[in-house]
Amino acid sequence: MSIAIVTSSDEAKEWKIALTDRLPNVSIEIVSSIEQPSKAPFLICWKPTKGQLNNFPNLRVIQSLGAGVDHIFEKNTIPEGVQIVRIIDERLSEDMWEYLLAATMQHLKDFRQYEVQKRTTTWQRHAYRRVPDTTVSILGLGKIGGYVAEKFSRVGFQVQGWSNSPKNLKGVRSFTGDTDLPFLLKNTDILINLLPLTPATQGILNRPLFQQLPSTSYLINAGRGGHLVDEDLLAVLELGYLSGATLDVFHHEPLPSNHPFWQHPKILVTPHVASLTDVNSAINQVVDNYQRMIRGTDLLNKITVDKGY
Amino acid sequence: MSIAIVTSSDEAKEWKIALTDRLPNVSIEIVSSIEQPSKAPFLICWKPTKGQLNNFPNLRVIQSLGAGVDHIFEKNTIPEGVQIVRIIDERLSEDMWEYLLAATMQHLKDFRQYEVQKRTTTWQRHAYRRVPDTTVSILGLGKIGGYVAEKFSRVGFQVQGWSNSPKNLKGVRSFTGDTDLPFLLKNTDILINLLPLTPATQGILNRPLFQQLPSTSYLINAGRGGHLVDEDLLAVLELGYLSGATLDVFHHEPLPSNHPFWQHPKILVTPHVASLTDVNSAINQVVDNYQRMIRGTDLLNKITVDKGY
Repeated sequence: MSIAIVTSSDEAKEWKIALTDRLPNVSIEIVSSIEQPSKAPFLICWKPTKGQLNNFPNLRVIQSLGAGVDHIFEKNTIPEGVQIVRIIDERLSEDMWEYLLAATMQHLKDFRQYEVQKRTTTWQRHAYRRVPDTTVSILGLGKIGGYVAEKFSRVGFQVQGWSNSPKNLKGVRSFTGDTDLPFLLKNTDILINLLPLTPATQGILNRPLFQQLPSTSYLINAGRGGHLVDEDLLAVLELGYLSGATLDVFHHEPLPSNHPFWQHPKILVTPHVASLTDVNSAINQVVDNYQRMIRGTDLLNKITVDKGY
Repeated sequence: MSIAIVTSSDEAKEWKIALTDRLPNVSIEIVSSIEQPSKAPFLICWKPTKGQLNNFPNLRVIQSLGAGVDHIFEKNTIPEGVQIVRIIDERLSEDMWEYLLAATMQHLKDFRQYEVQKRTTTWQRHAYRRVPDTTVSILGLGKIGGYVAEKFSRVGFQVQGWSNSPKNLKGVRSFTGDTDLPFLLKNTDILINLLPLTPATQGILNRPLFQQLPSTSYLINAGRGGHLVDEDLLAVLELGYLSGATLDVFHHEPLPSNHPFWQHPKILVTPHVASLTDVNSAINQVVDNYQRMIRGTDLLNKITVDKGY
């Protein structure tokens, strides 16, 4: 039996070392070229290139190297019978929460403005917003979104969430479906996107949605670049329907240097850092899933291929 | 009976309106010039000018317009028998906590660096620090410091505090006195100053103190400008004893435009905004203290003039 790894080179080496340490009798191969075929039944994978999965004739399990799996579907059709599992890591949720708290507090306390004022030696106070007066609305209440929503509530924010099925989370008002969405949007100070990227959520952050938000509201996108219609964000910022945005994910990463987001004063760009899968923290569940495949028992953190999440 | 107000003009008017509303039969006067004498026994006061308190022959109570009282002592000797009271407002503590959380999270998640990278179109990740791995050390565990310390602990930080007398605060390691200080400093990631400004704490943030901190540590000064030896901070940043600082208070405010802090890349300047006394939130205790003076009962939030806090 063997395991193949498809990802950027640095990360692949880290995974090979960790897996070799835990599974010394299993052959671990790094698939570095697009054409290279592999007989491995278990594939550890981040962003396979177009059609690359066709080179794995014995494939049985694809282990995504993150909480999201959209990158697997993006340029590949999943062969019949192949199961997809993802990383569910308390640490990913905690990291995401910390990033979102940082972005939210920075906005509430005008730290980006003070940064600008510093460059122009300007001493000017702005009336800050307070945590208990701020409503955070979270799109997507899955493992990570649910964790984040409860944390925001515990710190004292007003919290609402939107998801496919109603959720019972402490201190979180739950909204579902298209009919609920306008109610959530109109009472939003900070809109946080953590939805999975599927055909249904592609481009959901668009002009009709932004126009339902109060003009003072702020967007944080930590889902996927594909959720956001870039031109629509630029247009509503121009028109004043939204006060600004912190973006961690983009259609193309790294964000191309000529993209208007880089130079836009109301947008902060962070280089997809909100939560990064940590090998040492995630290795256990990957090894566990490999062993479950061998034994033929149920896999952990399996996704429904048809639903895409 | 009457009340006098000594502060910057905008704020004075706000206070006059609020007090007239609550105490319609009391004469409220704004003292706008340094020489203007007043017979008022009750003075509402922020930063009186040199010797100005000598113009109040009937003075019995000075109500500071903030949690600190150092500004009263700075250029005046307190006449015998005059009592000083300060604002103790849950909202001041909450605001301070929110400001410190914002400054801390911004540092942990490298948002200032991403701001710089944005200007140069640079996509580069930095290994962020995590909340549970971060030790926040708070100098000063009074009303505000104690509140802030428990809040940091509740969010998941490691928290230590330093104060004159030992404190029993949930999740906070308490240190006291000069002999304890080195132990606190050497295990510090974020050093937060919230001490009262007294002759004993003047200039406490100096080079000998900074040199005991880990070189990766970060300073947040939200106490008073007088706690910090500006040249020492610049020197240790240059030498790499400290990674950076967020400063909200300064020796002279507004911070003079030629001060080196403005242009220093490792320093963020905010214009004394961490917590601002809110008239509507603080009016009750001011009215209450005025009425207590009239009735001759014990005042609220009294400070010990000899100790200076």
